[in-house]
Amino acid sequence: MKSLGITIRPYRDQDWPSVWTIIKPVFRAGETYAFSPEISEQEAKKVWIEKPEVTFVAVGGYAGILGTYYIKPNQPTLGAHVCNCGYIVAEQARGQGIASAMCEHSQHEAATRGYRAMQYNLVVTTNQVAVQLWEKLGFEIIGTLPKSFRHTQLGYVDAHVMYKQLV
Amino acid sequence: MKSLGITIRPYRDQDWPSVWTIIKPVFRAGETYAFSPEISEQEAKKVWIEKPEVTFVAVGGYAGILGTYYIKPNQPTLGAHVCNCGYIVAEQARGQGIASAMCEHSQHEAATRGYRAMQYNLVVTTNQVAVQLWEKLGFEIIGTLPKSFRHTQLGYVDAHVMYKQLV
Repeated sequence: MKSLGITIRPYRDQDWPSVWTIIKPVFRAGETYAFSPEISEQEAKKVWIEKPEVTFVAVGGYAGILGTYYIKPNQPTLGAHVCNCGYIVAEQARGQGIASAMCEHSQHEAATRGYRAMQYNLVVTTNQVAVQLWEKLGFEIIGTLPKSFRHTQLGYVDAHVMYKQLV
Repeated sequence: MKSLGITIRPYRDQDWPSVWTIIKPVFRAGETYAFSPEISEQEAKKVWIEKPEVTFVAVGGYAGILGTYYIKPNQPTLGAHVCNCGYIVAEQARGQGIASAMCEHSQHEAATRGYRAMQYNLVVTTNQVAVQLWEKLGFEIIGTLPKSFRHTQLGYVDAHVMYKQLV
């Protein structure tokens, strides 16, 4: 898939150093993902690459890898038709539509893989750019979990459960 | 804790055969938990005993173990102050307040362990007894996930996200 000069393709082993460079500062910040801000490189690889069903990267020509996302089932067997995804765009590449392109790619990819819906379990309400983008891309705020995320700067903040049916 | 002649105490290794007897038919039915209806005994032990932070059993005097529940963090580090629990009562012991007693016990236990809220991620809407009981015990329906549970008898049905702040 191409969008805005971006190609989205499956992750390959040799992509890890670039992917880690992109996701590390986001995890270290502790403002959007629940993973420990002190997560090790090995543990990060486990959660972003090994545990998910599949991981993709967004490549911007000579600029290299500018974003990455994963798809995995959100629940065991009888809830496994609903997937969960995580998306991260490189700090220097934000505001260019890469998250949007990855989200649309992920919806198509998930539907192709047989998923019937996509769920985000913990969209931190202070991450307004993400909330607005997911809404624009068809996701509904199912509900808001009070003080469910411990933001490293702001303390306990609310988070949304967001959901979109794909079929 | 005692309630209605029930004692709730931590799970011990020798409880497994009784616990498996209680949870097996519920998993096999595939009407309330997302685990595979064909889950193996070993896998069931992993999800009910090994992965959770702690598991309890409800003991009814000479009747032995009549129910069981677990507590675990619902998300990694920055969401780990919210716990998740699962409860199962033996088929022959339902309607006696055992689920209610276990839920109240779990709330106290979770608060003691430092959890600030409790979340149920997938309360199948057709399981009306559970929905009503959790509401009675102070849980709020945060939202409803359309067709998020593949019920073995009814096909795709809705499920609630339910939540209660403990502090």
